[in-house]
Amino acid sequence: MLSKAKIKFVKSLQVKKYRKQEQSFVVEGAKSVAELLTSDFIIDCVLAQPGFRKAYAGVLKKEIEVVEVNEKELAQLGTFQTNDAALAVARMKPNTPPLLNEEFCLVLDDLRDPGNLGTIIRTADWYGLKNIIASEETADFYNPKTISATMGSFARVNVFYTHLPTFLQKNQWPVYGTFMQGEDVHRTEFSTHGLIVIGNESNGISPEVSSLVTHRITIPRIGKAESLNAAMATGIVLDNVFRLKE
Amino acid sequence: MLSKAKIKFVKSLQVKKYRKQEQSFVVEGAKSVAELLTSDFIIDCVLAQPGFRKAYAGVLKKEIEVVEVNEKELAQLGTFQTNDAALAVARMKPNTPPLLNEEFCLVLDDLRDPGNLGTIIRTADWYGLKNIIASEETADFYNPKTISATMGSFARVNVFYTHLPTFLQKNQWPVYGTFMQGEDVHRTEFSTHGLIVIGNESNGISPEVSSLVTHRITIPRIGKAESLNAAMATGIVLDNVFRLKE
Repeated sequence: MLSKAKIKFVKSLQVKKYRKQEQSFVVEGAKSVAELLTSDFIIDCVLAQPGFRKAYAGVLKKEIEVVEVNEKELAQLGTFQTNDAALAVARMKPNTPPLLNEEFCLVLDDLRDPGNLGTIIRTADWYGLKNIIASEETADFYNPKTISATMGSFARVNVFYTHLPTFLQKNQWPVYGTFMQGEDVHRTEFSTHGLIVIGNESNGISPEVSSLVTHRITIPRIGKAESLNAAMATGIVLDNVFRLKE
Repeated sequence: MLSKAKIKFVKSLQVKKYRKQEQSFVVEGAKSVAELLTSDFIIDCVLAQPGFRKAYAGVLKKEIEVVEVNEKELAQLGTFQTNDAALAVARMKPNTPPLLNEEFCLVLDDLRDPGNLGTIIRTADWYGLKNIIASEETADFYNPKTISATMGSFARVNVFYTHLPTFLQKNQWPVYGTFMQGEDVHRTEFSTHGLIVIGNESNGISPEVSSLVTHRITIPRIGKAESLNAAMATGIVLDNVFRLKE
């Protein structure tokens, strides 16, 4: 049986202010919780339907508290209608600059939609990226919608929030940025490492960040759509960066 | 001033049953309504804030009724918080098989999420595709979430709903399908025309449709994500189909 205080606590973590205050966040759904269990996040507790413990016995460490809850209790706690079998509370990681090592990183310039951010994290994980640098106004990594859209990849990709112009001014790597005008991404010879800047959903890359882009690239358009979704553009650029290198 | 009956009618079109009954659908937001105005859809009426008529005078035909409404009335009618300046009611097109002409078409096998469907339509339009074939269980083209996610591309891409196995059995074109195992999409020599099957978000391509795929392709994975989002996979495949052909 869940206490009222616990229910209130878990629900409060849907709001950024309380996540920040508690330095904790919620992971929903059996698959995502299973990914959390194999990650290096510190887990406060797991709330799960009876079958979960058995199904994931292989990844459940002894010291993790599993509270059995029923479907109705889970639905009460979560933000999604389809929260199937488990929910966990874990500790946020400190926002520390990543140690970059001849790799490709995404740089998100005010990516506002948590669903887009989650999809970008999932796609970055598909292409083996470990690190994303995001402007301070970018959607929150720990937003339940972001975590959900990553489909478990939140456990493998770090997002570091910082002031982008300051970060980029110190950087020595090639900085690729997607624009409507630029070198055809199909013909671009990408370096072995670099930063790839993705702009805001409505306004693209800001003027201040644009001035720090060293290579302007573009995804050729054959039809008439005005633009591509920001997450979509990210995936297509990454596919071009990594094609035939695998 | 909007009548109560009109408000009720417009709101009823958020539900598929009523859209089908009325053979009408709603387009929200100034940009999307502007795209509608330049399309061959039959428009019943446009409800817009005062500035809209002036801003879009160039595409507003005389015979189209424009009812001036205020922000509050618009917010009442729409499904989105950010419905900025206009909303239109238009007639659904009949579900007729497209006349295909040496082109690439997407085939959607139970794509359930309207946001994904909209993003796929937008991306198809970017790459110049005109036609999409969808299983009867695929999300509704006229769902407000689909229309919104197309960002105006609903006006240029047709979706034909049909029983996919029957459609594919009659087809003579190459049928590409994305699987976890298949030919590397980076090395695939695509034909000049063909069908590209995209599977359901959770289950992929159904066994019945899989058996009618003639070319199994795969997007190489470098990292650890279990899968790509269905819309993302569609965009990456299309970018590979059309690369360096433009």
